[in-house]
Amino acid sequence: MRAPENSILLVYSGGLDSTVLLYQLLEQKYEVRAISFFYGQKHEKELTIAQKNCQNLGVPHETLNIPLHEYFASTLLQGGGEIPEGHYEAENMKQTVVPMRNLIFASIAAGYAASHGIKKIALAVHAGDHAIYPDCRPEFFTALNQTLALADWNEVQTETPFLHFTKEEIVRIGLALGVPFATTWTCYKGGEKPCGKCGSCTERAEAFQKNGADDPLEKM
Amino acid sequence: MRAPENSILLVYSGGLDSTVLLYQLLEQKYEVRAISFFYGQKHEKELTIAQKNCQNLGVPHETLNIPLHEYFASTLLQGGGEIPEGHYEAENMKQTVVPMRNLIFASIAAGYAASHGIKKIALAVHAGDHAIYPDCRPEFFTALNQTLALADWNEVQTETPFLHFTKEEIVRIGLALGVPFATTWTCYKGGEKPCGKCGSCTERAEAFQKNGADDPLEKM
Repeated sequence: MRAPENSILLVYSGGLDSTVLLYQLLEQKYEVRAISFFYGQKHEKELTIAQKNCQNLGVPHETLNIPLHEYFASTLLQGGGEIPEGHYEAENMKQTVVPMRNLIFASIAAGYAASHGIKKIALAVHAGDHAIYPDCRPEFFTALNQTLALADWNEVQTETPFLHFTKEEIVRIGLALGVPFATTWTCYKGGEKPCGKCGSCTERAEAFQKNGADDPLEKM
Repeated sequence: MRAPENSILLVYSGGLDSTVLLYQLLEQKYEVRAISFFYGQKHEKELTIAQKNCQNLGVPHETLNIPLHEYFASTLLQGGGEIPEGHYEAENMKQTVVPMRNLIFASIAAGYAASHGIKKIALAVHAGDHAIYPDCRPEFFTALNQTLALADWNEVQTETPFLHFTKEEIVRIGLALGVPFATTWTCYKGGEKPCGKCGSCTERAEAFQKNGADDPLEKM
């Protein structure tokens, strides 16, 4: 299968970071296609949001069903216990690690891309994740790209433009691009409204504060 | 979670190569745990065989459901068109490539291993596959191990003892270990009996011939 040269496949969670990246890729005139993963995350709500956002933007989107929660242990997954509260820096946030998650997502995305003749996959990993998630670090992506170059006759490479950015910088980019932040989901818990207490909610709130901006999601 | 130091997780298809590897790992006194993937392969039959073999040997086994056929194109997958016949060397066998398959399997296996406190994953890739499947080559596994070392706080590495062996050599090892070859499935098609014509069947028949041995599967 062939795709236009400027095609890119976005691994899209429906969260703040990947929504900002989606808007940035469209602004950069990429032909964007998006996939989301249902992997047993408690915050399934993000999948509905991902689908809706893509539909509104006319971006082809598919949700892939990879039921990791049936086989892996993590508090982030259904059946995996309580999600810890507080800052990401805290040691207990490591309980939310889903082992090899980005490697698994990037591998499947790369296979999906190769299958559709797309040569680039975009992931919205950022610097704020490095301390907790080993597969968000720059050295991981360097090694992964070397592996991907050898894994298939159709070479696929990752694009991670936010790799060295903080959440604050991503919110700033999103504000400049006019991203409707009310349509992005961040909370790790599965409630109707964001809990405001998990590491993910805490980090988001701080990023808006530092930009002197209001988070429209809080008013929903 | 903690596992004994000599634990190893085998990616087990129920085919000839991984069955010989299963017997070799048990002979080497590894504490073996096995997983198989249902990824939409036409030759689903191998999964029942994998489960049965593990049960007979007292090896814990689980089948992971990763429905790649819903998203990827390959003649090996359900809905992917006719499987070509003839030798592996032929260009048309490349139609059976499932893009990034070993990378995807190894990534999920590594996450599963990390989740169970296991530090090694074994894969039965061999030299006969190199020409067709890029993710069976030694340089791919070198890069993959570097990536795995960076992907999780719990380091997992691959073990690929057959990487430089031909099918003929694997059959020879299996014969020496007394592997009951009648309980291994090779054919890429989903029939009751092996088709005898696909690349996989052709390679298997030649490997037995070169060892001057009979393939018990043919008599079933």
